[in-house]
Amino acid sequence: MALVPTTTIPDGAVFTEVDMGADSAAPTVRATVVQASTIFYDTPATIDKAERLIADASALGSQLIVFPEAFIGGYPRGSTFGVTIGARSQYHAAAIDVPGPEVDRLAAIAGKYKVYLVMGVIEREGYTLYCTVLFFNSQGQYLGKHRKLMPTALERIIWGFGDGSTIPVFETSIGKIGALICWENRMPLARTAMYGKGIEIYCAPTADSRDIWQASMTHIALEGGCFVLSANQFCRRKDYPPPPEYTFAGTNEELSPDSIVCAGGSVIISPSGQVLAGPNYEGEALISADLDLGEIARAKFDFDVVGHYARPEVLSLMVRDHPTTPVSFTSASKEAGPQKP
Amino acid sequence: MALVPTTTIPDGAVFTEVDMGADSAAPTVRATVVQASTIFYDTPATIDKAERLIADASALGSQLIVFPEAFIGGYPRGSTFGVTIGARSQYHAAAIDVPGPEVDRLAAIAGKYKVYLVMGVIEREGYTLYCTVLFFNSQGQYLGKHRKLMPTALERIIWGFGDGSTIPVFETSIGKIGALICWENRMPLARTAMYGKGIEIYCAPTADSRDIWQASMTHIALEGGCFVLSANQFCRRKDYPPPPEYTFAGTNEELSPDSIVCAGGSVIISPSGQVLAGPNYEGEALISADLDLGEIARAKFDFDVVGHYARPEVLSLMVRDHPTTPVSFTSASKEAGPQKP
Amino acid sequence: MALVPTTTIPDGAVFTEVDMGADSAAPTVRATVVQASTIFYDTPATIDKAERLIADASALGSQLIVFPEAFIGGYPRGSTFGVTIGARSQYHAAAIDVPGPEVDRLAAIAGKYKVYLVMGVIEREGYTLYCTVLFFNSQGQYLGKHRKLMPTALERIIWGFGDGSTIPVFETSIGKIGALICWENRMPLARTAMYGKGIEIYCAPTADSRDIWQASMTHIALEGGCFVLSANQFCRRKDYPPPPEYTFAGTNEELSPDSIVCAGGSVIISPSGQVLAGPNYEGEALISADLDLGEIARAKFDFDVVGHYARPEVLSLMVRDHPTTPVSFTSASKEAGPQKP
Amino acid sequence: MALVPTTTIPDGAVFTEVDMGADSAAPTVRATVVQASTIFYDTPATIDKAERLIADASALGSQLIVFPEAFIGGYPRGSTFGVTIGARSQYHAAAIDVPGPEVDRLAAIAGKYKVYLVMGVIEREGYTLYCTVLFFNSQGQYLGKHRKLMPTALERIIWGFGDGSTIPVFETSIGKIGALICWENRMPLARTAMYGKGIEIYCAPTADSRDIWQASMTHIALEGGCFVLSANQFCRRKDYPPPPEYTFAGTNEELSPDSIVCAGGSVIISPSGQVLAGPNYEGEALISADLDLGEIARAKFDFDVVGHYARPEVLSLMVRDHPTTPVSFTSASKEAGPQKP
Amino acid sequence: MALVPTTTIPDGAVFTEVDMGADSAAPTVRATVVQASTIFYDTPATIDKAERLIADASALGSQLIVFPEAFIGGYPRGSTFGVTIGARSQYHAAAIDVPGPEVDRLAAIAGKYKVYLVMGVIEREGYTLYCTVLFFNSQGQYLGKHRKLMPTALERIIWGFGDGSTIPVFETSIGKIGALICWENRMPLARTAMYGKGIEIYCAPTADSRDIWQASMTHIALEGGCFVLSANQFCRRKDYPPPPEYTFAGTNEELSPDSIVCAGGSVIISPSGQVLAGPNYEGEALISADLDLGEIARAKFDFDVVGHYARPEVLSLMVRDHPTTPVSFTSASKEAGPQKP
Amino acid sequence: MALVPTTTIPDGAVFTEVDMGADSAAPTVRATVVQASTIFYDTPATIDKAERLIADASALGSQLIVFPEAFIGGYPRGSTFGVTIGARSQYHAAAIDVPGPEVDRLAAIAGKYKVYLVMGVIEREGYTLYCTVLFFNSQGQYLGKHRKLMPTALERIIWGFGDGSTIPVFETSIGKIGALICWENRMPLARTAMYGKGIEIYCAPTADSRDIWQASMTHIALEGGCFVLSANQFCRRKDYPPPPEYTFAGTNEELSPDSIVCAGGSVIISPSGQVLAGPNYEGEALISADLDLGEIARAKFDFDVVGHYARPEVLSLMVRDHPTTPVSFTSASKEAGPQKP
Repeated sequence: MALVPTTTIPDGAVFTEVDMGADSAAPTVRATVVQASTIFYDTPATIDKAERLIADASALGSQLIVFPEAFIGGYPRGSTFGVTIGARSQYHAAAIDVPGPEVDRLAAIAGKYKVYLVMGVIEREGYTLYCTVLFFNSQGQYLGKHRKLMPTALERIIWGFGDGSTIPVFETSIGKIGALICWENRMPLARTAMYGKGIEIYCAPTADSRDIWQASMTHIALEGGCFVLSANQFCRRKDYPPPPEYTFAGTNEELSPDSIVCAGGSVIISPSGQVLAGPNYEGEALISADLDLGEIARAKFDFDVVGHYARPEVLSLMVRDHPTTPVSFTSASKEAGPQKP
Repeated sequence: MALVPTTTIPDGAVFTEVDMGADSAAPTVRATVVQASTIFYDTPATIDKAERLIADASALGSQLIVFPEAFIGGYPRGSTFGVTIGARSQYHAAAIDVPGPEVDRLAAIAGKYKVYLVMGVIEREGYTLYCTVLFFNSQGQYLGKHRKLMPTALERIIWGFGDGSTIPVFETSIGKIGALICWENRMPLARTAMYGKGIEIYCAPTADSRDIWQASMTHIALEGGCFVLSANQFCRRKDYPPPPEYTFAGTNEELSPDSIVCAGGSVIISPSGQVLAGPNYEGEALISADLDLGEIARAKFDFDVVGHYARPEVLSLMVRDHPTTPVSFTSASKEAGPQKP
Repeated sequence: MALVPTTTIPDGAVFTEVDMGADSAAPTVRATVVQASTIFYDTPATIDKAERLIADASALGSQLIVFPEAFIGGYPRGSTFGVTIGARSQYHAAAIDVPGPEVDRLAAIAGKYKVYLVMGVIEREGYTLYCTVLFFNSQGQYLGKHRKLMPTALERIIWGFGDGSTIPVFETSIGKIGALICWENRMPLARTAMYGKGIEIYCAPTADSRDIWQASMTHIALEGGCFVLSANQFCRRKDYPPPPEYTFAGTNEELSPDSIVCAGGSVIISPSGQVLAGPNYEGEALISADLDLGEIARAKFDFDVVGHYARPEVLSLMVRDHPTTPVSFTSASKEAGPQKP
Repeated sequence: MALVPTTTIPDGAVFTEVDMGADSAAPTVRATVVQASTIFYDTPATIDKAERLIADASALGSQLIVFPEAFIGGYPRGSTFGVTIGARSQYHAAAIDVPGPEVDRLAAIAGKYKVYLVMGVIEREGYTLYCTVLFFNSQGQYLGKHRKLMPTALERIIWGFGDGSTIPVFETSIGKIGALICWENRMPLARTAMYGKGIEIYCAPTADSRDIWQASMTHIALEGGCFVLSANQFCRRKDYPPPPEYTFAGTNEELSPDSIVCAGGSVIISPSGQVLAGPNYEGEALISADLDLGEIARAKFDFDVVGHYARPEVLSLMVRDHPTTPVSFTSASKEAGPQKP
Repeated sequence: MALVPTTTIPDGAVFTEVDMGADSAAPTVRATVVQASTIFYDTPATIDKAERLIADASALGSQLIVFPEAFIGGYPRGSTFGVTIGARSQYHAAAIDVPGPEVDRLAAIAGKYKVYLVMGVIEREGYTLYCTVLFFNSQGQYLGKHRKLMPTALERIIWGFGDGSTIPVFETSIGKIGALICWENRMPLARTAMYGKGIEIYCAPTADSRDIWQASMTHIALEGGCFVLSANQFCRRKDYPPPPEYTFAGTNEELSPDSIVCAGGSVIISPSGQVLAGPNYEGEALISADLDLGEIARAKFDFDVVGHYARPEVLSLMVRDHPTTPVSFTSASKEAGPQKP
Repeated sequence: MALVPTTTIPDGAVFTEVDMGADSAAPTVRATVVQASTIFYDTPATIDKAERLIADASALGSQLIVFPEAFIGGYPRGSTFGVTIGARSQYHAAAIDVPGPEVDRLAAIAGKYKVYLVMGVIEREGYTLYCTVLFFNSQGQYLGKHRKLMPTALERIIWGFGDGSTIPVFETSIGKIGALICWENRMPLARTAMYGKGIEIYCAPTADSRDIWQASMTHIALEGGCFVLSANQFCRRKDYPPPPEYTFAGTNEELSPDSIVCAGGSVIISPSGQVLAGPNYEGEALISADLDLGEIARAKFDFDVVGHYARPEVLSLMVRDHPTTPVSFTSASKEAGPQKP
């Protein structure tokens, strides 16, 4: 397996090419984890930035590109939104409808660069926001989404709660792909749902840059017998709007513009627990590696968490993966909503 | 009952025709047990060999053909798989998905030769392998499968554990057919589940060539009042890949290419305990006999293990034959698995 | 009550009409007990004979027709089956599956002649035989069955043991009907189960032609406050196959073809112990009577065995009427059995 | 077996001796059923009469003597007691306490004549009367009693209801003896309780002289595989006090003094249903027979109602044979009653 | 393991001593299977004969002695009992009560010779006979009994049916001992009940001398991982009473006095399926072997039918081991029965 | 929190005392993880060694002492047991019954040193071995056990499979304690069962000394919000019997006596993921730390895996914690087993 060097992103610089080598066997997938910051409150610019990063990763030969949690829409780091009502509206405005024009644009980008794309977004449905991950294939099609099941701490003030109907794993030409977001990755039952669906390339968009996060990523790779791709933003204070438009709660707000407010730590780990690329705590970067899918079988030979190592007659997980809605109508075969005459 | 002579398989030779006789009554089934070796690590060639053997048995007039345990995929005799990681992958690669293209091909072969086919295979589901028996009817349809419930000794490292949902008995035009694999046949409760389903033609694909195996086969025929057809491979060292690609653990590996590593012993026994054909310990062979199904009623007149001779109010067996899965999904009517976009 | 004359069955003759009279009150049921022999080893011919008898009884105005024990399948009188293996198979072959084509035919006959039909049969389930009584209504529907709980003496070699799940009493438009077979009628707890279910027309198909049988029939009528209809075969030696195909054990086999081997004694008794028709020891016959159901209340006024005359706080019978099977399957809503692909 | 001739009792005459024969094997018991009338409202005279009858039967060699229902105290045939309150008092006065002086006297008589004695009495406890049977052994000991569980029709106005604590069977040197009274013998569960206790000599003191009673006696002998000894009074109108002291309800009271008001019908039946002595409908009599206890085993070989012919896992009787009292006291280890300082 | 030579029993001769050797390790048990005939219809003489055989086996150093089915009471080989009523009584008389004087005598013999004793008897309870095995320890104590659950063919006419309360395994100083009788050994659920109780020394008193019986014995040893000791009678025609007192049904009774009517075949098999002693088809004999209990652990390492090789979550056996009686009494802590005054 | 220095165990040396400090708050528990080797095939000596280590830890002030997997009985590292049958018996002999004398001795030791004790053992039940952890309280009482649910790779040949009935968490005076063994700790559903029972001190006896094991330990502490105490053996080749008595499969057996065959890595981690003591890869050692139970609440404030962070309406785990046995007995309130006369 030829490891792809992790490349620091210079300002606007071009990524160095990587030698794919001659020994890259067929079932190997080149994957890139994007460690970069949202352009806060500017969704079109953020998508432009995403396209540039996708282009770069594609130029590296990457077939799969994973962005951090809330890359589009922004992670409300340090914000309480409690002070400035206006901020809430801006945050709401920066979110996107799914489906919607931003989704269409992302699909087109994926198709243009012929990459599978996993993108963290803030989704807006009616007046509720969700922390969501979108999936696109390399033919430019939107595949579906995962909504975060359980936001953490202050996130619960801003985001709604997903249900069991949006925890997909997609069977694609480059393997079975799914995602859990941030601390969902600490939920053993949520992970087991992923394993039950046969996940091979486990994406973990996150906002947690502590080093103990690495232990969880390694553990998940071992537990699930899968590749783990964790993408986090690398943000400085200046990536957010200046105060008072945006304030960092719990600080004396003496943060310099270059203060690091999210240190990244994006990483790619193999099913045997080997770190293939990252973690990077230096700056924005594309973290890339070649995933030899044959490793999965070797890892599961001894430990197949939903196969020979399970004890389903003792321990069994029920996943209620139907949509749950507060109001449903017997006459409606689809979602509740006003009649469209 | 016209006994069909057991025929040693010469290299590539044609089987001698057998005289079907004029006294073959209607409810008599000609059955053949195949005693032959897997072509290790070469599943297409093994299926080609299976087809040749089926053609030969069909030419003998056989209506039912039973292959040994793990004929497709191979029985990992003497292997620990512990040393050579590569071997694991090869073994995994030689296994087959069920359903899948190899199953389709076997179904087509059964239909082409108009035979019922009971075939031992290594099944691959996700990253777990199972020791499985597949059933096909003479119209070329795949009927279903039995997964070994409890592997023996080192097998437990390589194969998963079946559950109660795959212990079928099929009602066919030639009688009620089912199978237990190797030492499952020593499990009295598993056998009783078969009896409870009314098995008439009890197939026992195996890898046990010791002569005490014969006592168990005779006992089962008497206990169950059924025909017992035990198929084992006859393998020499040269039927496995040469060292170091494949090594026989626990030996000094001074086995000559012609050393017998599995001596067969395939046999057909009637419900009254009479040996109809075999056991053969000489070489690859088709072991054939005519099964007079009328013998079953005569045997059960005095001893019907699940009928007049049972004491259900004292002794009753519960078979939990629902599938057990570590993860289940409320929305899914079938197995858990990834979405196919 | 207008008694219906008992009519000897001449060879193929028509029954004389009976005068129903003008005083037949509404709740009166005309019932016929058939005293006739199985055509041994020829089930289709036996059913043909049954149909002729039913037609005759129907012509007499009979609404309920009760046949003897094992009328279809035959009572293995004098046989040990131990000598001639062939005989066992013939006997097994003459038995019927329930449900099955013979049951369908009997239902159609009941419907054609618009009679309730209680028919003694030999039931075949797998390889065990049961001595069973089938019930049909006058709309041509099969209602259910009773399997003999405890065979007597040599019967235990030939027949299995019913369980508590098949001791029905059916509520019909002509009253509550059930049956116990032969010496089951000597089992006080089995009879009490019938009484507990409210039996009004108690059928006692039998093979016992001794005159002390009459005492039991009278006693049961008194004890249960019900009508008792006991049907027995009238058989001569020639109704069975000739030796050596069928031999009578314990005899010097100097029986002439006309020797009586079962003398009948069929009878109908009222709840007050009055003999309404029979017993007939002369030959094949239809024994008929009008059952005035109003007599039941009169009889129970003084003695209601499960009502005012019971002492349930002192004496209580537990009937375990769930099916008992040696093997049961959690997934199966019905009996265990093979899959039908 | 030497049958003992039934002897009509001439007025005060001596019974003819019976030839015991030389073939009376050891396990044979000579038994006498007494068919005689109470001397109404005169208990001392009734006991005198009983002693004379016992002396006579003893002279015949009888080892067991069974008296009718209510022999002491009298069967209130035809009485409503509704008109004359005084009659009630007389009837109450004629009853006996158990234990009490009359019981002592009866014990002494049994010891004097060295006979087992089964005696129907009216028992008085406080202000309630019971229809009771007393048992005495040939050593002059009172063994215990059976209280009628369920009186019939008008009896319910006069007698109380026994409970499960007084349905004994006594193991004696002449066999296992017990009794049910009159229509209790029509209660299948009560009889089964007797059978469950192993009864061999089944006593049936009664007041039913209809001929259908014989059918029940025969049936019980067959059902229970036991000897049945049914004792009934033979009474003429003159055996009761003349009107108006005692009136026969429901009659025009034109009964002549010699009118038979209870016709007897006492009988002894063997386990195979053979009538050994009686029934006698002619007058007062001692009905005697020799009971060959070896017949029981022969009868039960084919039908053992609580042994091999039972189906206890389907049908089981619970007998609550503890005393039931309306008031009980936690401090009392014995029956409720006033403290005796 | 020092094998003890099987010794033919000369008329009244002394057994040759066996060399116990120095290598007899502590956990080795010397066991003897007795192959000898009942002295028909003479129970005292049969027990005398048993004592002589026990004395001989004890002199050989045997610690455990297993007798055939129905050794006391006799196996009713070839008898229908249908013709000669007298024979029934004799057979009933030859049976023994449990407990009772014969049981006391057997206990004393076991104590005298300091051997564990497993003895096949015909047990009499009331009027039903059971085919029973009694167990005694070397201190002269009666341990308990096993009653045959399901008699075979004609046996069902003669013997009752045991229930789940008498299928014991006894933990003794020489291992865990139990027994199933004759074709009960073909009942997989009954055997599994034995395994569930941890049986180590599995006794199989039988009346089946066919050679296919050996296959079942070997299979059971392998299936259960236990020693199997099968004891059968060796009987000639002259061991039964001469005709017409006793006739062999289904024969022309041209059997010479020396005709073999039961050929024995007693055998001892180790948990690995090795035949340790026998089968002997030559004559009366003591079949002895040393049982190295350490072999059990070695056998169960690979196959522990109720341990690591079970799949209880899929297949589980329920043993209803409470007594079932047709009648039970709330006040009785023991079996129903008559009062003993 | 005062960290307790990890102390290398010199040969037989005394541990250095630790300064408990003055700031040890009340809800702090001093715990020691023992990193030491079994004395192979010598269970008494192993328990002696355990007692010395417990004495030493107790002298350090430890209140809770956790031993590695299979400390008593030994971890069969490198063994196939396939070659030397003798070895199997030795291994079986070194295992212990639960309850049994070794359990009694361990309880006494816990009581003597007033410590909670968590001890890895090889449990023997009948002829199946289980990898088990025993729990004892500081009053010298045995609390219960956990049996490994799923052995890994070659372990499956040697050990049976636990069921859901032995996955306890004990509420003790020092917190809620439970254990999973080795790779069970990689089973997310098994861990979730522990969390569901409220585990606070999560013990992870193991045999895995790879450094990726540390990632799993850290992850579990974070995921479960609990203290994790992982105990592994530190073994050299000489701690096992020399060849040929014990051989290491898959090696050329050129291991020097001092070769490290298990490198330890025992560790203690806090709920916030902080390593409190260890990992130690140097030699035998006592790894000790003070567990401030107050940390648990702080950790769970943000992430309570079975509390506010669960989504039970979407994801729910069913734990079937009833015992599963292949054979059960209706009359038995405890496990099946032989009678003890």
